Amino acid sequence: MLFVIGLGLGDVTDITVKGLELVRSCNIIYLESYTSILPCGIEEMEKFYGKAIVIADREFIEQRADEMLSQAKHLNVAFLVVGDPFGATTHTDLIMRAKDKEVNVKIVHNSSIMSAVGCCGLQLYHFGETVSIPFWSETWKPDSFYDKIKRNRQNGLHTLCLLDIKVKEPTIESLTKKTLEYLPPKFMSVTDAADQLLSIIRDKVESGEADLAFNENTLFVGLARVGHDSQKIRACSLIKMKECDLGSPLHSLVLPAENLHPIEKEYLQQFSENQL
Amino acid sequence: MLFVIGLGLGDVTDITVKGLELVRSCNIIYLESYTSILPCGIEEMEKFYGKAIVIADREFIEQRADEMLSQAKHLNVAFLVVGDPFGATTHTDLIMRAKDKEVNVKIVHNSSIMSAVGCCGLQLYHFGETVSIPFWSETWKPDSFYDKIKRNRQNGLHTLCLLDIKVKEPTIESLTKKTLEYLPPKFMSVTDAADQLLSIIRDKVESGEADLAFNENTLFVGLARVGHDSQKIRACSLIKMKECDLGSPLHSLVLPAENLHPIEKEYLQQFSENQL
Repeated sequence: MLFVIGLGLGDVTDITVKGLELVRSCNIIYLESYTSILPCGIEEMEKFYGKAIVIADREFIEQRADEMLSQAKHLNVAFLVVGDPFGATTHTDLIMRAKDKEVNVKIVHNSSIMSAVGCCGLQLYHFGETVSIPFWSETWKPDSFYDKIKRNRQNGLHTLCLLDIKVKEPTIESLTKKTLEYLPPKFMSVTDAADQLLSIIRDKVESGEADLAFNENTLFVGLARVGHDSQKIRACSLIKMKECDLGSPLHSLVLPAENLHPIEKEYLQQFSENQL
Repeated sequence: MLFVIGLGLGDVTDITVKGLELVRSCNIIYLESYTSILPCGIEEMEKFYGKAIVIADREFIEQRADEMLSQAKHLNVAFLVVGDPFGATTHTDLIMRAKDKEVNVKIVHNSSIMSAVGCCGLQLYHFGETVSIPFWSETWKPDSFYDKIKRNRQNGLHTLCLLDIKVKEPTIESLTKKTLEYLPPKFMSVTDAADQLLSIIRDKVESGEADLAFNENTLFVGLARVGHDSQKIRACSLIKMKECDLGSPLHSLVLPAENLHPIEKEYLQQFSENQL
């Protein structure tokens, strides 16, 4: 049987009691390690579970997932995922492949940024489509998420912006070599995201586009390490967000709707230096 | 200190390890009991936690929350919530009132239907605004959620419909009496919801409205008891959903986008009797 177990967002104790019991009963434990940040060091997790952990990075999922599914035919195999098991398309795909191979699958849900973002006080049912903001390069600066943000804003909805993560990205030079070499992991901060958003807005202004979704004075909410003890939230203008150091990853950014419910406004106030 | 602890969606073991440790360390434990269904009987919960539980129903939250907050000034008080602490506006309001009174608050996140709905295979970042479908009465048949569903559909997004819960609703006759009497609890099923949606569509057709958001043949996804062992998911047309018995509550309904991603379609297929 394959147990796909969400670890939640905080530290090692954010696994559910059910999840922990299952991990401890499994023969082999894989830990998905490339769509998020691990709650703590592997050693600490191994100690807490009382079990050895096999790291499953992108290469593993792409090349050796079948091996894992074969094991799950006659053994109890745990596949641990930061957040909730259905947070990333890769995991949905894996679960489907398991079912194709007639491997029984059990899911253990946990907290995900998609719901935990409520911690800033903005109501979950007032969020529109979630967008992802990718790292720009010199030559690749996609901004298709802008239209989604704009649509949410026009419809009076908040937008959760998930910020890019680059883990185990091969260097361009090594792609043609036998052994891949990797870039250091990179996590987009609210500063990086604000910088890219400001750049988009400048371009829109220059090209004479009216009716912008936001400008440099628009209120944004930056969130860092949601669910951790060191969680930080800051509500400020986009231009200030660019200078805002929320510390280590993961970060997320929210563009609230223009008109806030009084409870939302009052709750957000605690994260702002100015009167909202 | 006030600990607001999410219990997740399944049984008593869906609390996180962190949450359980905190509950066991608290002096007083309240359990919010009117925005969702409890994971099991109170006795089972008390046995699992090794602690007595005080039920906090709507009257309690409205009339005696200040008492709880005063206790939390010098005692460790747990407030347990099914799902995630930020799932309902009431809880956000309570946390704000605690902060106003300078009571320290710690949140323990958990799974919520807003993210666990991903279990049907529809990608979370393709969901638009969530809507709530209320029970209709003879004289009160609101359908403002239809416009939101339509907007999501037009924008190529899925819609999660949360279905109404009526717990501890006073009878109209008892409202003028000294002692309130209560109606039996009522939970909207996917059948009830489909019935109301079909009725809305019939009205729209009669009034000559073109470009409907859906019709009786449109694919819907019904979900029951998400996160429980007895979880059931069914993908079928709206007209079939009206005859679909998914068993005991809670139920949710999803209207998928018209164009599905191949992985979404393949995943949904397992819940359908027909070729999607």
